Amino acid sequence: MALNSKSIRRLLADVHRGKLSPDDAVEKLRHLPFEDLGFAKVDHHRHLRVGMPEVVFSPGKTPAQVAEIFKRLAMHAPNVLATRASAEQFRAVKRSVRGVHFESSARAIVLQRDEQQYGRGKISVISAGTSDIPVAEEAALTAELMGNAVARIYDVGVAGIHRLLAHRKAISQSRVAIVCAGMEGALPSVVGGLVGIPVIAVPTSVGYGASFQGLAALLGMMNSCASNVSVVNIDNGFGAGYVASLINRL
Amino acid sequence: MALNSKSIRRLLADVHRGKLSPDDAVEKLRHLPFEDLGFAKVDHHRHLRVGMPEVVFSPGKTPAQVAEIFKRLAMHAPNVLATRASAEQFRAVKRSVRGVHFESSARAIVLQRDEQQYGRGKISVISAGTSDIPVAEEAALTAELMGNAVARIYDVGVAGIHRLLAHRKAISQSRVAIVCAGMEGALPSVVGGLVGIPVIAVPTSVGYGASFQGLAALLGMMNSCASNVSVVNIDNGFGAGYVASLINRL
Amino acid sequence: MALNSKSIRRLLADVHRGKLSPDDAVEKLRHLPFEDLGFAKVDHHRHLRVGMPEVVFSPGKTPAQVAEIFKRLAMHAPNVLATRASAEQFRAVKRSVRGVHFESSARAIVLQRDEQQYGRGKISVISAGTSDIPVAEEAALTAELMGNAVARIYDVGVAGIHRLLAHRKAISQSRVAIVCAGMEGALPSVVGGLVGIPVIAVPTSVGYGASFQGLAALLGMMNSCASNVSVVNIDNGFGAGYVASLINRL
Amino acid sequence: MALNSKSIRRLLADVHRGKLSPDDAVEKLRHLPFEDLGFAKVDHHRHLRVGMPEVVFSPGKTPAQVAEIFKRLAMHAPNVLATRASAEQFRAVKRSVRGVHFESSARAIVLQRDEQQYGRGKISVISAGTSDIPVAEEAALTAELMGNAVARIYDVGVAGIHRLLAHRKAISQSRVAIVCAGMEGALPSVVGGLVGIPVIAVPTSVGYGASFQGLAALLGMMNSCASNVSVVNIDNGFGAGYVASLINRL
Amino acid sequence: MALNSKSIRRLLADVHRGKLSPDDAVEKLRHLPFEDLGFAKVDHHRHLRVGMPEVVFSPGKTPAQVAEIFKRLAMHAPNVLATRASAEQFRAVKRSVRGVHFESSARAIVLQRDEQQYGRGKISVISAGTSDIPVAEEAALTAELMGNAVARIYDVGVAGIHRLLAHRKAISQSRVAIVCAGMEGALPSVVGGLVGIPVIAVPTSVGYGASFQGLAALLGMMNSCASNVSVVNIDNGFGAGYVASLINRL
Amino acid sequence: MALNSKSIRRLLADVHRGKLSPDDAVEKLRHLPFEDLGFAKVDHHRHLRVGMPEVVFSPGKTPAQVAEIFKRLAMHAPNVLATRASAEQFRAVKRSVRGVHFESSARAIVLQRDEQQYGRGKISVISAGTSDIPVAEEAALTAELMGNAVARIYDVGVAGIHRLLAHRKAISQSRVAIVCAGMEGALPSVVGGLVGIPVIAVPTSVGYGASFQGLAALLGMMNSCASNVSVVNIDNGFGAGYVASLINRL
Amino acid sequence: MALNSKSIRRLLADVHRGKLSPDDAVEKLRHLPFEDLGFAKVDHHRHLRVGMPEVVFSPGKTPAQVAEIFKRLAMHAPNVLATRASAEQFRAVKRSVRGVHFESSARAIVLQRDEQQYGRGKISVISAGTSDIPVAEEAALTAELMGNAVARIYDVGVAGIHRLLAHRKAISQSRVAIVCAGMEGALPSVVGGLVGIPVIAVPTSVGYGASFQGLAALLGMMNSCASNVSVVNIDNGFGAGYVASLINRL
Amino acid sequence: MALNSKSIRRLLADVHRGKLSPDDAVEKLRHLPFEDLGFAKVDHHRHLRVGMPEVVFSPGKTPAQVAEIFKRLAMHAPNVLATRASAEQFRAVKRSVRGVHFESSARAIVLQRDEQQYGRGKISVISAGTSDIPVAEEAALTAELMGNAVARIYDVGVAGIHRLLAHRKAISQSRVAIVCAGMEGALPSVVGGLVGIPVIAVPTSVGYGASFQGLAALLGMMNSCASNVSVVNIDNGFGAGYVASLINRL
Repeated sequence: MALNSKSIRRLLADVHRGKLSPDDAVEKLRHLPFEDLGFAKVDHHRHLRVGMPEVVFSPGKTPAQVAEIFKRLAMHAPNVLATRASAEQFRAVKRSVRGVHFESSARAIVLQRDEQQYGRGKISVISAGTSDIPVAEEAALTAELMGNAVARIYDVGVAGIHRLLAHRKAISQSRVAIVCAGMEGALPSVVGGLVGIPVIAVPTSVGYGASFQGLAALLGMMNSCASNVSVVNIDNGFGAGYVASLINRL
Repeated sequence: MALNSKSIRRLLADVHRGKLSPDDAVEKLRHLPFEDLGFAKVDHHRHLRVGMPEVVFSPGKTPAQVAEIFKRLAMHAPNVLATRASAEQFRAVKRSVRGVHFESSARAIVLQRDEQQYGRGKISVISAGTSDIPVAEEAALTAELMGNAVARIYDVGVAGIHRLLAHRKAISQSRVAIVCAGMEGALPSVVGGLVGIPVIAVPTSVGYGASFQGLAALLGMMNSCASNVSVVNIDNGFGAGYVASLINRL
Repeated sequence: MALNSKSIRRLLADVHRGKLSPDDAVEKLRHLPFEDLGFAKVDHHRHLRVGMPEVVFSPGKTPAQVAEIFKRLAMHAPNVLATRASAEQFRAVKRSVRGVHFESSARAIVLQRDEQQYGRGKISVISAGTSDIPVAEEAALTAELMGNAVARIYDVGVAGIHRLLAHRKAISQSRVAIVCAGMEGALPSVVGGLVGIPVIAVPTSVGYGASFQGLAALLGMMNSCASNVSVVNIDNGFGAGYVASLINRL
Repeated sequence: MALNSKSIRRLLADVHRGKLSPDDAVEKLRHLPFEDLGFAKVDHHRHLRVGMPEVVFSPGKTPAQVAEIFKRLAMHAPNVLATRASAEQFRAVKRSVRGVHFESSARAIVLQRDEQQYGRGKISVISAGTSDIPVAEEAALTAELMGNAVARIYDVGVAGIHRLLAHRKAISQSRVAIVCAGMEGALPSVVGGLVGIPVIAVPTSVGYGASFQGLAALLGMMNSCASNVSVVNIDNGFGAGYVASLINRL
Repeated sequence: MALNSKSIRRLLADVHRGKLSPDDAVEKLRHLPFEDLGFAKVDHHRHLRVGMPEVVFSPGKTPAQVAEIFKRLAMHAPNVLATRASAEQFRAVKRSVRGVHFESSARAIVLQRDEQQYGRGKISVISAGTSDIPVAEEAALTAELMGNAVARIYDVGVAGIHRLLAHRKAISQSRVAIVCAGMEGALPSVVGGLVGIPVIAVPTSVGYGASFQGLAALLGMMNSCASNVSVVNIDNGFGAGYVASLINRL
Repeated sequence: MALNSKSIRRLLADVHRGKLSPDDAVEKLRHLPFEDLGFAKVDHHRHLRVGMPEVVFSPGKTPAQVAEIFKRLAMHAPNVLATRASAEQFRAVKRSVRGVHFESSARAIVLQRDEQQYGRGKISVISAGTSDIPVAEEAALTAELMGNAVARIYDVGVAGIHRLLAHRKAISQSRVAIVCAGMEGALPSVVGGLVGIPVIAVPTSVGYGASFQGLAALLGMMNSCASNVSVVNIDNGFGAGYVASLINRL
Repeated sequence: MALNSKSIRRLLADVHRGKLSPDDAVEKLRHLPFEDLGFAKVDHHRHLRVGMPEVVFSPGKTPAQVAEIFKRLAMHAPNVLATRASAEQFRAVKRSVRGVHFESSARAIVLQRDEQQYGRGKISVISAGTSDIPVAEEAALTAELMGNAVARIYDVGVAGIHRLLAHRKAISQSRVAIVCAGMEGALPSVVGGLVGIPVIAVPTSVGYGASFQGLAALLGMMNSCASNVSVVNIDNGFGAGYVASLINRL
Repeated sequence: MALNSKSIRRLLADVHRGKLSPDDAVEKLRHLPFEDLGFAKVDHHRHLRVGMPEVVFSPGKTPAQVAEIFKRLAMHAPNVLATRASAEQFRAVKRSVRGVHFESSARAIVLQRDEQQYGRGKISVISAGTSDIPVAEEAALTAELMGNAVARIYDVGVAGIHRLLAHRKAISQSRVAIVCAGMEGALPSVVGGLVGIPVIAVPTSVGYGASFQGLAALLGMMNSCASNVSVVNIDNGFGAGYVASLINRL
């Protein structure tokens, strides 16, 4: 925040000292500094504002675009993450940025130079089935990259409730839980009823037929009868990891 | 079935004896006997075919129509049921049929003259919340009217999973379970995972917002990760009671 | 939790001392204590488990049912809340429970005997328009009842973005923000981009035509391009207040 | 069930004999035994609980994952089934498990070492059209693997009602019927009206345009005017076979 | 209006004087002139163009508006129909137009001064249930008003297929059939398979839950596996009667 | 029909003459003759009943299945049509059946040995845009194969209404019109308003975005303000051609 | 704009002259002036920014709230409009603000003190049917209140295309057209094809069944094959009038 | 074609000889003649009527069809555009038409021989994210081809509102703005609130999960709380560019 305040103060000091006319200052004040790559405004100050690394959502971008954005961000932020990345996008980034690696289970390109723990407790990442793991891994990886200890609890869906109950203690010792489930999306309600911590629910597109690509799970989670549940987009492991990290820093 | 077979055989005997021409027989054979009230074909043979009482779905019918249909059915079937009935429709039926009563919790007009137990075991009727009780009661009443012992287990939704677990033994001693739930509709999956009996799931329209009048619960139940679950229409307590009764007679 | 652990330990001690056979213990261990009102399982242990007051969702319950449940809960929990309550339901509760009052702007029946502050910081409750206020008030009241300081910032929708910007500092000094918006539901994204705290988004059913009773706002919020946003059900002010309270206690 | 009861009793006996402290027992009692493969909890006790073989839902799993899960399950359960399997997944399983074969019409990997008949009667599996056969075959194979006699009655859709009527007797001699239909999904209603047995309806994704991948059939079946119909997910032949098998064992 | 009359008179004078052949005049009369009431263009020539009476769709119009439009139409067309009319709208029309009556079963205001039979054969109007009768009656009345013989066959839904089969001969002797059904909307497929005539399907809003106000029936009918079925809007008895009348005149 | 009546009469004559017992006759009368291929009931009598050739819907069938069904049908019916066929399916049919050809614009395999004109007038087939032509061609081909004269009027969509008006006379001289349109699906309403003949509307999946694969066009056509419009499934050119052919034979 | 620029410049001048510290200026610059009524931020500067009167959307506000907001706005803006207002809301406003009147056909409370013509040409407001007039009137009134000449062309729907063609010249002489239509919503496409001016399409909720409260019309208009069409929300006459007014001022 | 040229020549000769005023000739030229290519009516006069070049929507057309239509249009119109074109379609056009080029960022085939500026001001084209650029480029290119100056402002989505605010001045100096956004589609509301010019909103299919291919963005934009926003179809950059061009010519 220092940098930001500093530059604004410098500008106003310039007005104060008469080096800048009020009119010019009006115009300048509207501009927070960001760099223009032509196809994307790289917003270095988002880092300042929210205290988190920048993230690239990879689908629909060419490998060259991902690499260029990733490189610029890596000049300013210690940790950078590209989600839903392909191997091809990773190879392009690897050629431009030193120290990146690819987490295939989470389909993510990762640059982690700051390994400090910012979270004050543990985050549980829970998945209903084996097929939900890629989304859960995206959430877990995001949380780890943002400086959190993560407990992974996978394949504990509601049709075998005893499997979940075995982990009740571990979950309740976390400060926040992420629950990923497709099909009927019932797991967040059950977890929410078992523990008194905030639960971030992630509907996944796992299922077929009347799951309608995750709509059934999304609607189920929106209607959770447990009051400690809030929901992010279908398959949005990153968002869940991000929200949970913010909560765990409090 | 005897009656039916008898009349058909008599017809063919008439052909055999030359009392009826083959041409006339062709036409007659297409007609199973039913009575014509003008506005509704009363199908007495449905009773013969499926071994169950006739049911009147009351909404959209005038009290007079409900009463007329009910009366005719009561001439042939020992037990008659009118679902989703209003008090006004009940009063009309009461004027025409002796021995009927009104079950307000299940919104049903009931005539039960055959109280024999046809079911071979018990049917559990389970509801997630207090608001689901009217639908659950419709299911329970239907099952009782069709000659079954019913165990009612209400308000055991998934957000307090221990409440359900306390009833596990009772449920698993039933031959079939009916599970009514609104909101996210997760209860049938959990029940289905706990016990090895067939589970009939009934989504209810209980909820608000993204429950979309029961659509969320319906989709959730269709996508149940428990394999022993099948589903009937939103709020269709009668259908669930009917299917469960058929199963319990096997 | 003490009580719960105590009773389980006592049971096992009984086994240890030979007062209880292993077989009887197996059965008893499955039962967590709760009281049975017939139409609703009142779950006093939920209080123990999650450290929050019990809540009654009033729609679809008779005034007598609301009053009965409220009274029982009030015997065990210091604070009790009935949401979406009618004046009639309030009058029934008032006859049974001393000290309740009705918050008409939030349509809530409130019993607050524990006024301790449990939250460690402030919760901002933000609404896009005047018509979203009832939902925002339900969220704010819930948070206050659960021991939080609340800052209300109303009518700062995105079509006049400067109105929101004027409150940026206040919002960023909160530990968590609740944002209620109907129509296009864009406000949480903008708030999420302005501040680095967790944002709980509440779609409201405010709007007409293609808002489809809040579906447009819900979908918008699910797709938020701000990473710190998670979402609760349409009009679910209570849920948002509850989640925010849990977060603020961390 | 013996094994399960035994191990719990042994634990409590240990408490009784003072070999285990009550505190340690509390913790252990929460754990029902299951084996942890890392990516999937293999739940051998599901077999004990529901008396049916374990099933692998193959889509979204790598051949290696399917093979590993299949192999573990085959160590405990006599019969194992992998549904919606690819030829590639089959080859991986075949390398690990002796005695499996691939049923291409049902897209299933099958291990059947227990060929006992558990069902007390026959299950009719009925399909509306030729294109519905893969789903019907999945249902039929599931039922056979679970020890049932199956009667296949295919291509008897409602637009040629006499084709169905020719099979009426065969169907009514079954204890339960499975009816698979795409497009308008009308066949279960007609079958349900013809016979007095439970009918499990399976909407299929067969169709085009306004069939919306099976939604039209699903909605049609949910609204069946025949009371003996309940419904499983679109294309869920396995679920239908499973439910029917449970019913046929009663 | 004067101008309009004048131009028609001039045209007819031209025919009179042999300047215009009658054939050419018919063609010219089909083009363009209409009267302007301010709030509605009354299109008298629609009658000439399509050879059918004008129809008023009553909902959303005041009684005075219905009466005014009805009166104007009655000056030019022998038969006039107001559909979905209320008793109040009827009273307003009755004050302005002599000879109208109200068909309450079809919710229609009727003026029939031309009773000639234009249809060359019979139209069957078939309903699945008692609750579908109002829609069926609107269709039947429309067809009768347009000069057709109508056979009403009601309450012959697919769950009791023998009731329908009893009417097969009558239906196949019609030139066209109208089939009204709610719930799963399966009846048109079955009728379409039984007879070789065009079938106009009318989904009705009869049903509940997943019928979604007739959407399930509409989708079912759109996906009919019978090739001789086409569909009109939900509850659109008038449209079905109109299309069937056009076909029966061919 | 002769054959059918004959065989039934022969059966009854056998009863009359004592050659067949009434009991055996009961059973036989339930069976209308059809041939069983195992995977599909080939229904030769559909030809007798509806007076039209049999049609194979090709998607989801193997080339061998299409060929086998096509060959069997070709033994009994003079004209056979396979819709939505691939070139590969055609090659398989060609090897089995003499005289077939492939209409690539309509994606159809055609066998036409009966070229008699059964239609009494002309059928207009109208398309809104160039991209709708494959569906329109399927309709036109079906109508021609069923013995009708067809007038093709393509690319006359509503955004250039004068293009349609230029064809008004030709359309009004047809006995029935088929109108194929994607996107907003407005053309059938305009055609329906221009001419007094029955209009069969075919929504097509042409479009993008909010066309939702033809849903927008389908809903538009269902809500047509022209009363002479009925609708078939999205892209169902065959159904439209079939219905129009039935109408044109009247 | 003068006022706004002036106050900002004054602030910066204060910094320049040392009367205000840079730090305080930073904070103040973030605040654009608006007045706080507690339940609604009245944004007087919106008037400055967009050059249009403020509008109150009345549903969901109490008469007192509407009156209070209306009064405040009337202190700053010459013209004020409350849409979808009830008579009761009007009476409350009338008590507080002099010179208002109620336009019942448009359901609007109107204060028009500035009657200057700002529009440079004419705006055509076109409706498909009589039932669409309230929405069309809201659009027309909005445009008039914002200083435009309006031509009303009502009841010219596509099923009688000649009625529309008669107005072609009038429409093409406008600078922009608003087209209101329910049911299939086809009119904007036809108008868009006839004239070369921008067309603002307003779907209305007029219709029944598959119109789904205007969804069919909305989707139809979104998919318009005419390129000069853009769309506002269902029944949003005000929005259409507003956009058209902005265009007409250019 | 000859005939067509002839009639135009005759008309122009009439003007030449003073038999027809130029004004009347303009009006006549707008009516009706077009050329028939068999598979598409090429409407050369659309150019005259709306003053814009013809456009080919490429998907679903063969390269040969695109080339043929493009060539014919290029004989009459100076500028021709093929949208959503593939490289293969471009190659076919290039062989037939001189001077075309391919804009890969906008997926468009372009022929621009008339480079005159018809627009009276500037059009801002704004995109929320990098992935929305293809749609934005289609809009920008369309506007440029139709003679407008375009300002591109990309990647200024609402989650970093300061990036947008930096461009406020530039946008407000345009006469009309096009705003392309996927995901929650909130950007048009914010832009609409910032500036007083007409805003054309383009929902894009950018997003995943609950974006449902652009439905979330579309619904959001339809419900915009800014009154100066109207909407075109998902991904319809061309339509937006076209409408904006019409407005900018006024």
